Amino acid sequence: MHFASDNSGPVHPEVLAVLAEANEGYQMAYGADTLMDEVRDRIRDIFEAPEAAVYLVATGTAANALALATLSQPWETIFCAPMAHIQEDECNAPEFYSGAKLTLVPGGDKMAPEALRQAIENEETRGVHGPQRGPVSITQVTERGSVYSLQELRALCAVAKEFDLPVHLDGARFTNALVALNCSPAEMTWKAGVDVVSFGGTKNGLMGVEAVILFDAQKALEFELRRKRGAHLFSKHRYLSAQMAAYLRDDLWLRSARQANDNCARLADGLRAAGASFAHEPQANMIFANLPRKQHRRLHDAGVAYHLWGSNLEGSDEDELLTCRLVCDWSIKPEEIDRFLALL
Amino acid sequence: MHFASDNSGPVHPEVLAVLAEANEGYQMAYGADTLMDEVRDRIRDIFEAPEAAVYLVATGTAANALALATLSQPWETIFCAPMAHIQEDECNAPEFYSGAKLTLVPGGDKMAPEALRQAIENEETRGVHGPQRGPVSITQVTERGSVYSLQELRALCAVAKEFDLPVHLDGARFTNALVALNCSPAEMTWKAGVDVVSFGGTKNGLMGVEAVILFDAQKALEFELRRKRGAHLFSKHRYLSAQMAAYLRDDLWLRSARQANDNCARLADGLRAAGASFAHEPQANMIFANLPRKQHRRLHDAGVAYHLWGSNLEGSDEDELLTCRLVCDWSIKPEEIDRFLALL
Amino acid sequence: MHFASDNSGPVHPEVLAVLAEANEGYQMAYGADTLMDEVRDRIRDIFEAPEAAVYLVATGTAANALALATLSQPWETIFCAPMAHIQEDECNAPEFYSGAKLTLVPGGDKMAPEALRQAIENEETRGVHGPQRGPVSITQVTERGSVYSLQELRALCAVAKEFDLPVHLDGARFTNALVALNCSPAEMTWKAGVDVVSFGGTKNGLMGVEAVILFDAQKALEFELRRKRGAHLFSKHRYLSAQMAAYLRDDLWLRSARQANDNCARLADGLRAAGASFAHEPQANMIFANLPRKQHRRLHDAGVAYHLWGSNLEGSDEDELLTCRLVCDWSIKPEEIDRFLALL
Amino acid sequence: MHFASDNSGPVHPEVLAVLAEANEGYQMAYGADTLMDEVRDRIRDIFEAPEAAVYLVATGTAANALALATLSQPWETIFCAPMAHIQEDECNAPEFYSGAKLTLVPGGDKMAPEALRQAIENEETRGVHGPQRGPVSITQVTERGSVYSLQELRALCAVAKEFDLPVHLDGARFTNALVALNCSPAEMTWKAGVDVVSFGGTKNGLMGVEAVILFDAQKALEFELRRKRGAHLFSKHRYLSAQMAAYLRDDLWLRSARQANDNCARLADGLRAAGASFAHEPQANMIFANLPRKQHRRLHDAGVAYHLWGSNLEGSDEDELLTCRLVCDWSIKPEEIDRFLALL
Repeated sequence: MHFASDNSGPVHPEVLAVLAEANEGYQMAYGADTLMDEVRDRIRDIFEAPEAAVYLVATGTAANALALATLSQPWETIFCAPMAHIQEDECNAPEFYSGAKLTLVPGGDKMAPEALRQAIENEETRGVHGPQRGPVSITQVTERGSVYSLQELRALCAVAKEFDLPVHLDGARFTNALVALNCSPAEMTWKAGVDVVSFGGTKNGLMGVEAVILFDAQKALEFELRRKRGAHLFSKHRYLSAQMAAYLRDDLWLRSARQANDNCARLADGLRAAGASFAHEPQANMIFANLPRKQHRRLHDAGVAYHLWGSNLEGSDEDELLTCRLVCDWSIKPEEIDRFLALL
Repeated sequence: MHFASDNSGPVHPEVLAVLAEANEGYQMAYGADTLMDEVRDRIRDIFEAPEAAVYLVATGTAANALALATLSQPWETIFCAPMAHIQEDECNAPEFYSGAKLTLVPGGDKMAPEALRQAIENEETRGVHGPQRGPVSITQVTERGSVYSLQELRALCAVAKEFDLPVHLDGARFTNALVALNCSPAEMTWKAGVDVVSFGGTKNGLMGVEAVILFDAQKALEFELRRKRGAHLFSKHRYLSAQMAAYLRDDLWLRSARQANDNCARLADGLRAAGASFAHEPQANMIFANLPRKQHRRLHDAGVAYHLWGSNLEGSDEDELLTCRLVCDWSIKPEEIDRFLALL
Repeated sequence: MHFASDNSGPVHPEVLAVLAEANEGYQMAYGADTLMDEVRDRIRDIFEAPEAAVYLVATGTAANALALATLSQPWETIFCAPMAHIQEDECNAPEFYSGAKLTLVPGGDKMAPEALRQAIENEETRGVHGPQRGPVSITQVTERGSVYSLQELRALCAVAKEFDLPVHLDGARFTNALVALNCSPAEMTWKAGVDVVSFGGTKNGLMGVEAVILFDAQKALEFELRRKRGAHLFSKHRYLSAQMAAYLRDDLWLRSARQANDNCARLADGLRAAGASFAHEPQANMIFANLPRKQHRRLHDAGVAYHLWGSNLEGSDEDELLTCRLVCDWSIKPEEIDRFLALL
Repeated sequence: MHFASDNSGPVHPEVLAVLAEANEGYQMAYGADTLMDEVRDRIRDIFEAPEAAVYLVATGTAANALALATLSQPWETIFCAPMAHIQEDECNAPEFYSGAKLTLVPGGDKMAPEALRQAIENEETRGVHGPQRGPVSITQVTERGSVYSLQELRALCAVAKEFDLPVHLDGARFTNALVALNCSPAEMTWKAGVDVVSFGGTKNGLMGVEAVILFDAQKALEFELRRKRGAHLFSKHRYLSAQMAAYLRDDLWLRSARQANDNCARLADGLRAAGASFAHEPQANMIFANLPRKQHRRLHDAGVAYHLWGSNLEGSDEDELLTCRLVCDWSIKPEEIDRFLALL
């Protein structure tokens, strides 16, 4: 029973199958492979964006850092939530690639439009002395498992546009959000005002592929050069393409995300029934549940893997509520969830 | 018939097999997978370096840039050959990661010890005004298919050590050189004086994995932080480990390189027999052959893929000698080579 | 009547005199001038630090950015107050020079030891994923005119030392604080636990010179190389030395700071007598006073120069309290202050 | 007798006078001083460039590094001569500021148009793998004391323009060249095809001021932000303005350069008469003369200061010719030159 991370699960077998299929003969290196043509076309189709520039990289941090570097200047500041992945989990990669700094918009895991406006207004009040206003980066699904509604996304983008700032969407769990919102990719991105999206695949069943989609292709060459300079251009690129091709064929991306979200809902329902409360309402494939220490102990002893969040098992108060993070991916079996719930 | 690049060939089936095998159940992310333990142990064994720090990244440019950044300071200069990959083919990645600049040691594809000493002596002659002396980077196999002998490697490293400079070996085609020299990995690296090696796998049958081996582990944590900050730490790291594990099991790395070198020798012999001369003596898996334009035309029309080097097919002089680069990988069939030779 | 900034006042005549005196004959360039020897000796004396490395640069931002870069690594984060000059007024220079990011310690203009400890503890909780803990930067005098007591400085440094982190003191108004505390430079720096200090001169009557003092000289050469690489090494360095020499001769630095602080106290007393309240208690040479709009209008119309802080003169409520910043430097005449007060 | 460097001489008294004059009362900080208005107008006039953006910095390296960063992208390469100051004497500052690398155009101290074209053509031959073509940087006067004729400048710029590359002129000794060529500033810059010029003052009698002139003001704000981010924006900016104002009033810049060039010509004539040969024909204020060791010894013993170039006094062959660099500035007295020549 493994709920530690959607980075820990296996690759979907359909992905392995396309990798094997792609392993025939010779292919042009560095992104000139024929599978990349399929991927590009498919993503443009899916996003209703026939002019979009589409690139593949192997890590989410690379997708974010390269996207933000392309959208910003080294004397700017990037607006994001205090618990954004780019702030907390990328070891200065966005700053390394962009030269820009990050301004944390006060609030919880979601940015609120008014807080964003305030944060933007607070910058560029001192001429060249302070950093200049740069892109807004929104994490969808947030790091706490929340999903921005379309209305919320539109409102954030509208604030950015008031100040002529570009918007980046960190979609490491893009499809989990999409499935939760039951909307179209276009609605969740450019129709809402997003300029560039990190369209994640790794957490949703791929080995390691994320697409970066620039709806305005004007900076496409800049992105390509930044990717190469960052050492993120793959020579045997066809194996990135193959993963993404498999992902988009037969709706694997949607099926996997639905499965993950369904697993998560089943788990949340069971937790709720067992009396657990939630630090954040589960909306996609992540749960932050509060459970008494004794239950954590029981789960831990039974070999269930997950992270305690800001606390640990040590401590004598058996009834103290400790928050844990439980993440579901496509591969979890309903029986495992039932076994987990039985342990409660 | 594809001789354009060893980046264009397929992945070895044994690698796919281990990838599939690795795809069972859950694994710790970010390099804490059990296959990485196997890889680390195996590499330490193979290199007779029980204390070495071993890391995996997905591109050769990442391996080189991260290794050089770890060995240098941003006010230093890195010594390399004018046609080194880090100079010509990495779009400023080494400079981006290290902050250092490159000093080109005059000469051909191989650095000569005396030229290296001269280049080093020319730096640090003006106090803080010029860059300070930094690491020496040696490409083995060189970009023109030459192999440094052990004696040559030792002589270069000895020069670096005279000035207390660390040595990096760009081993994108490490195993092709090893097989050509018929020596041990230790002899070709730390016993000769190499401090850090980019131990390539991609060009020799993997999807995209290179190991960086730091024989002195003192800067191991720095390397890890640089890797993460560069966005080169894989979440589903087990799939990098699996490739490298497959590579090292049952001597696949050696078998593949031998096959590539053998293919290359067969091709070179045929070319020689057909009257071709060589711009560089073929020593590993690359050939730079001089052929008259009319022969290039014939090969081209027959669909043989390879790069003309600094020239093109246009031109009226049918007998003009044009240099072409032919690269062999493990996957080429002897029949293909024979077909190629028959076309001559 | 000019209270807008201690950057707007003239250079002290004694400084001009030494500049003229330094203008005789030839001098070695780039810091090898004889006046620099005097400056180095004098600073070591004054700071009771015979081994300290001492360097001059021309801007406070250069002093801070170079000092912090020398103390940090690009994968670290620097701890400072949210209104620190390095955060708000240096347009990403500290990040540019160091590669590190900034972590804002919640609180007011002064960092509290407990808040600092909490901020430090919040970092390095996620292995290589988050930034690593880096130097602590303390601004003395703060950007709101407060002065850390020796006890407060020691407490902050003690927290940093618990975590083995170096401490930087941004002393753009070093001497104003020193005079306010009536302590020795050693007490306010290394005896309290400070490792590197930006010892400001510009705001206190120089043209443009700040010393960077590294109490541990181990990184002296690194600093020199960073200074040159940052383009902050002056060829005609003697004119920097001359300014600093003048500053330290005959206690000009102390006299000027005392004069500025006295001016400020006189102004504060008058404001208090006129019924003004203070957003921050004036402790050195800066006042943040709350005055009704109508008084600001009167002062403004009379040509008094100062900054309104986060508000402006527009508005109809004549009694609304608006905060203004008033800064005094050595050159202000008591009569000007009296004229100002008469306007109230 | 001091011929070591035009960085070692004193500041012109007229400059000190304007500094003293500028030291009255209060002035807006950070470049908003009234003297800067005078400077901007005057430079636009002198360069016949009413739309040019004009900025002041304190070091030549800052001027070059900021100018080149503004003209380039971090994935580009800057073309320059192998002995350019930006290559040899700026400790990676241009790379630090721009992120770009340098491509050395083979040849002597002057770039030849054909060599430049060849160097440009050699880049961008490998798509995104190599660096992209970036600005061309020309040093006028060169580091060996040569002056590009207007025709030569035009030819170099024409090559750059063929490839749509911007041109930077490193004019640390701008006025010495101008006086030597007896042309107008416009002819030597934008009329020849130069886009941005580092217009040096320090080596020609100022304390430390260089102007950066962007003939196309489109990137003016970018330059300002880069200057601040690089910590090169002076708070008490009026003292930079005052220097430059003094420089341009009453033709001080031209008078000083003429005096330096005249001193140099007098010295060169004397050397020639004494039988010395020249490694480079003296054209401005620098001489590279070949003298036998015994003469160097005599000069050295008499206390004449200058640099031996790539050799030293040690050695037994008294007749061996050693090259020395002799630099003249405005302040050298004819009597000193005569004393020097008498020693020969």
